[in-house]
Amino acid sequence: MRATLVEVAPRDGFQPIGPFIPTEEKVAFVEDAHAAGLRRIEIGSFVNPKAVPQLRDTGEVLRRTARLDGLDAQVLVPNARGVALALEAGARHLAYVVSASEAHNRSNVRRDVAASVRDYGEIVAGLPAGVKVRLNLATSFDCPFDGRVEEDLVLSRLDGLLAHREDVEVGLCDTTGRADPNHVFSLVLKCLARFEGRTRWAFHGHDTYGLGLANVAAAWRAGIAVFDAAFGGLGGCPFAPGATGNVATEDVAWMFRRMGVATGVGLEALVAVAARAAALPGAAPGGRVRAALAGICAAS
Amino acid sequence: MRATLVEVAPRDGFQPIGPFIPTEEKVAFVEDAHAAGLRRIEIGSFVNPKAVPQLRDTGEVLRRTARLDGLDAQVLVPNARGVALALEAGARHLAYVVSASEAHNRSNVRRDVAASVRDYGEIVAGLPAGVKVRLNLATSFDCPFDGRVEEDLVLSRLDGLLAHREDVEVGLCDTTGRADPNHVFSLVLKCLARFEGRTRWAFHGHDTYGLGLANVAAAWRAGIAVFDAAFGGLGGCPFAPGATGNVATEDVAWMFRRMGVATGVGLEALVAVAARAAALPGAAPGGRVRAALAGICAAS
Repeated sequence: MRATLVEVAPRDGFQPIGPFIPTEEKVAFVEDAHAAGLRRIEIGSFVNPKAVPQLRDTGEVLRRTARLDGLDAQVLVPNARGVALALEAGARHLAYVVSASEAHNRSNVRRDVAASVRDYGEIVAGLPAGVKVRLNLATSFDCPFDGRVEEDLVLSRLDGLLAHREDVEVGLCDTTGRADPNHVFSLVLKCLARFEGRTRWAFHGHDTYGLGLANVAAAWRAGIAVFDAAFGGLGGCPFAPGATGNVATEDVAWMFRRMGVATGVGLEALVAVAARAAALPGAAPGGRVRAALAGICAAS
Repeated sequence: MRATLVEVAPRDGFQPIGPFIPTEEKVAFVEDAHAAGLRRIEIGSFVNPKAVPQLRDTGEVLRRTARLDGLDAQVLVPNARGVALALEAGARHLAYVVSASEAHNRSNVRRDVAASVRDYGEIVAGLPAGVKVRLNLATSFDCPFDGRVEEDLVLSRLDGLLAHREDVEVGLCDTTGRADPNHVFSLVLKCLARFEGRTRWAFHGHDTYGLGLANVAAAWRAGIAVFDAAFGGLGGCPFAPGATGNVATEDVAWMFRRMGVATGVGLEALVAVAARAAALPGAAPGGRVRAALAGICAAS
C-alpha cells in the first residue's frame, strides 16, 4: 500500500504569510522537502502579484528547482493569463480551482461557477500535450458563506468539468475544514463510483477544527491515495492563530507510517523542514507531530 | 445516534499541572462542565498526595459537586487504599487502571500485571452494591517502553480481568497517542466480538501526534459510543508543549455534531470552559476548535 503526499506549503502555506519570504529561502524549502522524499510539490501560483504579493517570484522558484531529480512541480493558475505565464515559465503541471459553491467561487475568482467551468474548458483544450492538470474543486464539502454543500451539487459540478477532459486529477477540497469523516467517506465513495476510469482523485484537507487526519483517514478508506498537506501545518490565517491551517504533512506522514502505508517520506528530515517553516515570521503553524517528536515526555 | 463524553480534565488534565489549582476553581470547572451538558466527569483521584499533590483535594471536590443534577462523578483509584478513601468520601463510580504492558504497569503502579489483576479482583469483590466500575486498560495499543502492544495480549489481559466481574465499563486507553485508526478499529471490533454481553466499552485517546479525532472516529465506527476527553486538550506535559494531551472535549463534541451524533454538549459553553482551562498557569493545552471558534477568518 502506498499513499502520495502533495506538498502544498510553498503555495497554500506561504500565501497568507505577510512578510516576504526571500526567493532563496523558498527554493531551500522546496529543496529540503524534496530531500525529505516529497516528489510532488505545489511550488507557487501565477496569480496577480497585487492580490498575492508573497508568490510574485513563483517563476523564479520554478526555474531554480527544475533540476531536482524526479520533482513533479505543480503551480496554481486562476485563469487563462495565469496559464500563459505558467507555461512560459516552464510549468508542466497546472492546478486550476473551481468552487462547488457559487458564493465561494465569486469571492475567490470573481466569476460565477458556469463561467469558471467554461474558462476551464477553453484552458484544457488549449494545453500543450504532456501538461498535467490538477482540478481542485474548492468547497466540495462546506462553504464559508453557504454552509454545507450537497453531494448532488458536487457531482453535477464534476459532470460539467470532467466533460471537458477526463484525464485529470480531481482534488476534493475541504476548504473550511468543516467536513467530517462520514461526509468525506460518503462523497469520495460516490465520486469514485460515478467517474470510474481515467480520472484520478486527491483529497485536500484543512485542520481548522482538528479533523484533518480523521478526514484523510476517511478519504483513504474510501479509496483516495493522493493527499495535499503543508509542512508545519501552514496555511493558517496569521490574524487568528490556530485557525484554518492545512493538515500538516508530517502528521499525515506519521499517520500513514503507523498504518503501515508507505509514503516515501523521511519523517525526521520532514520534521526539520516543518520546524523551520513554523518559525517563519508571520506564520500560523499547526500540526502535532513536530512538537511530539521534538520532546516526548513519559505518558501517564 | 448518541455518544457519551466522559470529561477527564479534572483528573487526567489537571494532574500534570504544577501550580496548585485552588479547590474553589476546580469546583467551578466541574460546575461549568456540568452546565455545558457534560454528565460524566472524572473529578479527581485518590492517589498518594505526595505522588500527585495537585489532586490532594479530590474528596473536597467530590463533596462540593455532589449536588449537581444528574452528575455521574468518577474518581481514579490506584489501589485498595484509594478505594477505601474514595468510598469514605462518597464516591459511587471508581476508575481502576491496569496496563496491558508489563513495563508500563510497573512504572505506573510498581507492580506486575498479575498482581494488579489480583488486586483488582479483590477490590471489585469487596465493593458495596451500586458502586460502578470503569476499568481502564492503559497501553491497550502502544507502550512508551515496549512499543506496539499486540492485540492477543490485550484480549488475554481482558480475559483475566473480566473473569472477576463482567458488569463494568472497559476503557481501551491509547496512553501514548501512537495508535492509528486501523489499529483502533481492529482492536475494538475484536473486543466487542469476544466480550459480547454485559461489558460496556469506552475509548480513551490522546492527541500527541494529531490522531486523537481520527482514532475516536475509528472507535465509533467499530461500535464504541463512550469517549474520554479533556476540555482544552489538557493532559499534556508542561515541559514539552504540544505533547501528550488528551483529545480535546470540544473537538470531539464538534466532530460528533458535524457527524449528526448527539452528545448533549453545548459547544459555546464548553469552549468557554476550555479557554479558561487552557489559560491555567502551567497548562499545556491542545485541540483546534477552541481557537477556530474564537476567531474564524475567511478560508482560502
